[in-house]
Amino acid sequence: MSKNRYQGDSDSYLAKKSQLASLITVYGRNPVFEALNDRSMSIAKLHLADSNRPSKAVQEMIDIAERRGIEVLYHERKALSRISKNGKQDQGVALDIQCPLYRSANELLKKELPARILAVDGITNPQNLGMIIRSACAGNIDALLLSTGKGNVTLSPLVIKASAGTLFKMPIYHCHNLAEGLTELKQHGADICTLSSYAKTTLFDYRPAKSAVYVLGNETEGVSKSVEAVATVGLNIPMNRGVESLNVAVTGALIAFLP
Amino acid sequence: MSKNRYQGDSDSYLAKKSQLASLITVYGRNPVFEALNDRSMSIAKLHLADSNRPSKAVQEMIDIAERRGIEVLYHERKALSRISKNGKQDQGVALDIQCPLYRSANELLKKELPARILAVDGITNPQNLGMIIRSACAGNIDALLLSTGKGNVTLSPLVIKASAGTLFKMPIYHCHNLAEGLTELKQHGADICTLSSYAKTTLFDYRPAKSAVYVLGNETEGVSKSVEAVATVGLNIPMNRGVESLNVAVTGALIAFLP
Repeated sequence: MSKNRYQGDSDSYLAKKSQLASLITVYGRNPVFEALNDRSMSIAKLHLADSNRPSKAVQEMIDIAERRGIEVLYHERKALSRISKNGKQDQGVALDIQCPLYRSANELLKKELPARILAVDGITNPQNLGMIIRSACAGNIDALLLSTGKGNVTLSPLVIKASAGTLFKMPIYHCHNLAEGLTELKQHGADICTLSSYAKTTLFDYRPAKSAVYVLGNETEGVSKSVEAVATVGLNIPMNRGVESLNVAVTGALIAFLP
Repeated sequence: MSKNRYQGDSDSYLAKKSQLASLITVYGRNPVFEALNDRSMSIAKLHLADSNRPSKAVQEMIDIAERRGIEVLYHERKALSRISKNGKQDQGVALDIQCPLYRSANELLKKELPARILAVDGITNPQNLGMIIRSACAGNIDALLLSTGKGNVTLSPLVIKASAGTLFKMPIYHCHNLAEGLTELKQHGADICTLSSYAKTTLFDYRPAKSAVYVLGNETEGVSKSVEAVATVGLNIPMNRGVESLNVAVTGALIAFLP
């Protein structure tokens, strides 16, 4: 395979990629290598930094890509950082995975809102996010909403693994800023629900009028202030024995399996 | 504090301890040290092996025990292994933590069976077991049943941590062999329920006649054969999008929060 240099700068590549929007980028040698070896994943492109020194590991990635017919693109070191969004940890390699159900949140607004949306606000633990995706996919959630901005984990191979592969089956919508995304959904008639032990209505008794977005907050801090400001409904999960909170993935599962 | 040597052999100590039965033993220097420093834990005894060489770490444990009025007992190396039940990893130290709601499964049979019991069969991941205990404690589970025999994780500091401290609030019953413990409960009129995607009744529709024991199986293998042989009811969790299974802690949460 001849060296393919991306024609144009990486910013224009990113703009084009953002239009497609159904690509998840993983990075780092082990994650990229694992994904390349996983035949269940549909892979769009392998990105390599010019600065990579020739090595057995990189050559093996190129060989697998060649066998699978995956395009290999070479970038300047800085350009690769913009693609991986994590120059410190990408080790000079990144991989775009096709995720047909991964779309921009704008798509959600184009037709009637689904009845039940689960939004994640600052979930930092990949294990938790993967479990949430798995429960949402198996349960009665129509769409998952997440922000690709600061504070959320990226959809990394760890998340894919913890989701037991369901990440590729679940309709996932991304926005840049969750508070803004939720504001638009609210303007389209959705209830924005956050959990609070002070709320009078329980999660189990609440019946949304039209469409409900349930927001799961960060493991320690809970829902962020900007998101709380958009919320319209507070819900409480009744707990016995003085227990004050549940694991966030458990809360996600209880929401996912509401009747 | 003068050197306290246990009067009698370690087997008689274990027999006496088994009678008390409300003690959880943790081992290893870091876990013991952490528990000693946690004022919320009620600690019965610190056990040290004679073979421990004098060190700052061990001396610090002894000092904390002295300050907290915790009895320190010294044992031969082999005797300590029998107390920790893990001579390879105990590093010569073990600690008995009081757990007032941790009792022998025989206690369950002495009065009317509780309506909802959650049993764990071969859960190996401490994170999962801790989450299950937390959900059970917060939800509508009357008793947790586990075996202390092979295959289950022990109630280690990792489990305590993952349970967010709820391990000390939840009534937990232990038997040596889960299949035998379940057989006794069945003879006392309880339904023994396992989850199966082939079952016709769903978890959400099922109404037990009297008392139900829901069994959670191992993360990979599911419920063991000996336990499956005792089961009387199969239950199915309906799942969308072709998802085949849920994380075991998520399944536990759905059971815990059944109305």
